[in-house]
Amino acid sequence: MKIELINTGSELMLGRVLNSHQQFLCRRLADFGHVVARQVAIADTGSEIQNAVREALSRADLVITTGGLGPTSDDITRELIAELLGKKLIENQNVLAHIENFFTKRNRPRPAKTSVETFVPEGAEVFLNQFGTAPGLAIKIENRKSKIEDSKWLVMLPGPPRELRPMFDNQITPLLKREFADEIFICRTLRSSGVGESRVEEMVAADLQALVKTGLEIGYCARPGAVDVRLVASGAGADKLVAAGEASVQKNLGANIYGFDDDEIEAVVIGVLRSQKKTLVLAESCTGGNLAHRLTNVPGASEIFLGGVVSYANSAKEKFLGVHAETLKNFGAVSEEVAREMASGAREKFGSDFAIAVTGIAGPGGGTTEKPVGTVFIALASSSGVEVKMFFNAWDRETFKQVTATQAFEMLRQHCLK
Amino acid sequence: MKIELINTGSELMLGRVLNSHQQFLCRRLADFGHVVARQVAIADTGSEIQNAVREALSRADLVITTGGLGPTSDDITRELIAELLGKKLIENQNVLAHIENFFTKRNRPRPAKTSVETFVPEGAEVFLNQFGTAPGLAIKIENRKSKIEDSKWLVMLPGPPRELRPMFDNQITPLLKREFADEIFICRTLRSSGVGESRVEEMVAADLQALVKTGLEIGYCARPGAVDVRLVASGAGADKLVAAGEASVQKNLGANIYGFDDDEIEAVVIGVLRSQKKTLVLAESCTGGNLAHRLTNVPGASEIFLGGVVSYANSAKEKFLGVHAETLKNFGAVSEEVAREMASGAREKFGSDFAIAVTGIAGPGGGTTEKPVGTVFIALASSSGVEVKMFFNAWDRETFKQVTATQAFEMLRQHCLK
Repeated sequence: MKIELINTGSELMLGRVLNSHQQFLCRRLADFGHVVARQVAIADTGSEIQNAVREALSRADLVITTGGLGPTSDDITRELIAELLGKKLIENQNVLAHIENFFTKRNRPRPAKTSVETFVPEGAEVFLNQFGTAPGLAIKIENRKSKIEDSKWLVMLPGPPRELRPMFDNQITPLLKREFADEIFICRTLRSSGVGESRVEEMVAADLQALVKTGLEIGYCARPGAVDVRLVASGAGADKLVAAGEASVQKNLGANIYGFDDDEIEAVVIGVLRSQKKTLVLAESCTGGNLAHRLTNVPGASEIFLGGVVSYANSAKEKFLGVHAETLKNFGAVSEEVAREMASGAREKFGSDFAIAVTGIAGPGGGTTEKPVGTVFIALASSSGVEVKMFFNAWDRETFKQVTATQAFEMLRQHCLK
Repeated sequence: MKIELINTGSELMLGRVLNSHQQFLCRRLADFGHVVARQVAIADTGSEIQNAVREALSRADLVITTGGLGPTSDDITRELIAELLGKKLIENQNVLAHIENFFTKRNRPRPAKTSVETFVPEGAEVFLNQFGTAPGLAIKIENRKSKIEDSKWLVMLPGPPRELRPMFDNQITPLLKREFADEIFICRTLRSSGVGESRVEEMVAADLQALVKTGLEIGYCARPGAVDVRLVASGAGADKLVAAGEASVQKNLGANIYGFDDDEIEAVVIGVLRSQKKTLVLAESCTGGNLAHRLTNVPGASEIFLGGVVSYANSAKEKFLGVHAETLKNFGAVSEEVAREMASGAREKFGSDFAIAVTGIAGPGGGTTEKPVGTVFIALASSSGVEVKMFFNAWDRETFKQVTATQAFEMLRQHCLK
């Protein structure tokens, strides 16, 4: 089964928005054993959309388009595809009622522009939008030229991720299950921290050689502060092949592996603390709330996370964390000593089992010869005292925050392993 | 000038990583007046990469590939493209010296795997990687078939964003400036908050009609808590056309416009506070540090942002913000009253001009009939008292945090406008 994705939208080609549909749809389809062969993004102009859909339909069994179904004048995907396929647009009463109801519930008048969303290509399956107005559409395309090939499907999804994602999961998945057989495909990712990409391959590749010869595929992916090793196999015996690969990587990377597949290190840390019935608090300076934000993205974080202080100003370090004015004066805010006092102060004030404190220079300004941009101290306070590590993360500001947060979570994870 | 992008990587097609190159490269190229015609993502297997590059070169004047230049065994883009173009790979001594130096500076032995990165296609321009080991490569392809068309360029960039981005800005941009003329292309985005997408179009479209007839293109893009209106024109007179469109949208959207182009609302708020010499602190419950994280992504945030408390546990609300136990007991943590005390407590303890407090139910758990998931109270404390607004943001957990943070920043921005 061959699948292609087409993301439409001039905002994509102008770089005004991030295309997150590619990852979401590829991931969901891979979970059923279907690997997307090609993804294409184009502007929402007539010729481009029709050319891309025509080409994709000539190669693929399933083509999924995103975007261009909304109410504004640049939303033209529905009309162009109906024209390409020679199908009339017909008003759909269920869609009309759904949109009327959408605005009634919100106590807002229905904008006249939304009428265009009620017209659907004849014969299309219609998926009412639970989080918006534009419906999703699926059209079965009978193969007119060949007697051998099966029919194809063209699925059109609305552009906003908060509409597309639940629609795909709740409404499109049943269609795909009905029309296409699952395939045997196993993908397992082992996520590691603390070792670079080349070194990871040196550690694991030799022992995987025999499995590669029998069909195991290996991939490596470097992320901020982490490296993924991906093991893929398909067909009969795929599960055993991947399991053997996993055991081999486990043996060679050991405690550097913090999780699997989509595990984020913050979720792993929360799991560990929950199982050990321990609580965590944060004292963040240069990461400015990134650790707290990542922890609280995990549902159930409140069971172990009591809270944190973002102590950007020195006065906040003194008042909320009990850092001594003298320590700040003698060693500077970015120092091992201040990190130590921030962590022990936070642990004491919140009354938690663990406290992580971070102080450093995110840049672009604020660096000195002695402490250049990228310098960061991470402290971990626990019942056994305070441990401080220095790192040098000379990236852009946002990567700096991400890498530093990952290192801090990894310090805590390693501590809990002991 | 026609440009196409090719993003290679099986991790993209399996949905294991987000493709952020598309947005970055499209945006940078648009800034020179070049709109990317097509972006394609494919797995890093031989036939797919060669097919995609061959097709793109048949249509475009400039083809940029990303990924597959690294040291591991799945990095095969360099070899495949050299083969496709019939070029030998030759060891480059500058690259070798650069990689040796990279590891020497880090006190690590050079992994043998990195040797592959020192081989470059004959005749390629080589761009040493300032943040990694794999060099970027650019190959001029003389047109052999036609006497009319100019030569084409194929540029290959490394996959990690922290390597690709500075390489594009510092090393590839000069090549493009040298080889391709800038084109006249104006793109202006007006960013609004507080009004839905259909309503925005109703407010602005009628007055833009005359300009559309003379060549102005309009686009709308709904984002969490915000709507963008995009005005585009090219060729002679483009600047005047876009300026006239901007004036018209300004007139009709008025104070709903918070910024332009890439302005993030948090950066706008920081700018306003800086100009008014005011300071801000935060008391976050359900947003869990998202406001602090977004504020501190902005360089120079420390001038106005003193810090914040992430008061996830009720005890943290009492201890750090002075919320009364009785208020928590009588009204619950998610209530107007608690939001009010969090904001006034934070303002007082930090000694700031403004404090924003947020308390709500991000979900997926924790909702009740009376206070369903998505309920949120945002309080703004200032010298004129505390203002509280209730919102209902029934999205997934991360969208909830994003939308709520945007609403909070917008409340402060509107307050400062008065």
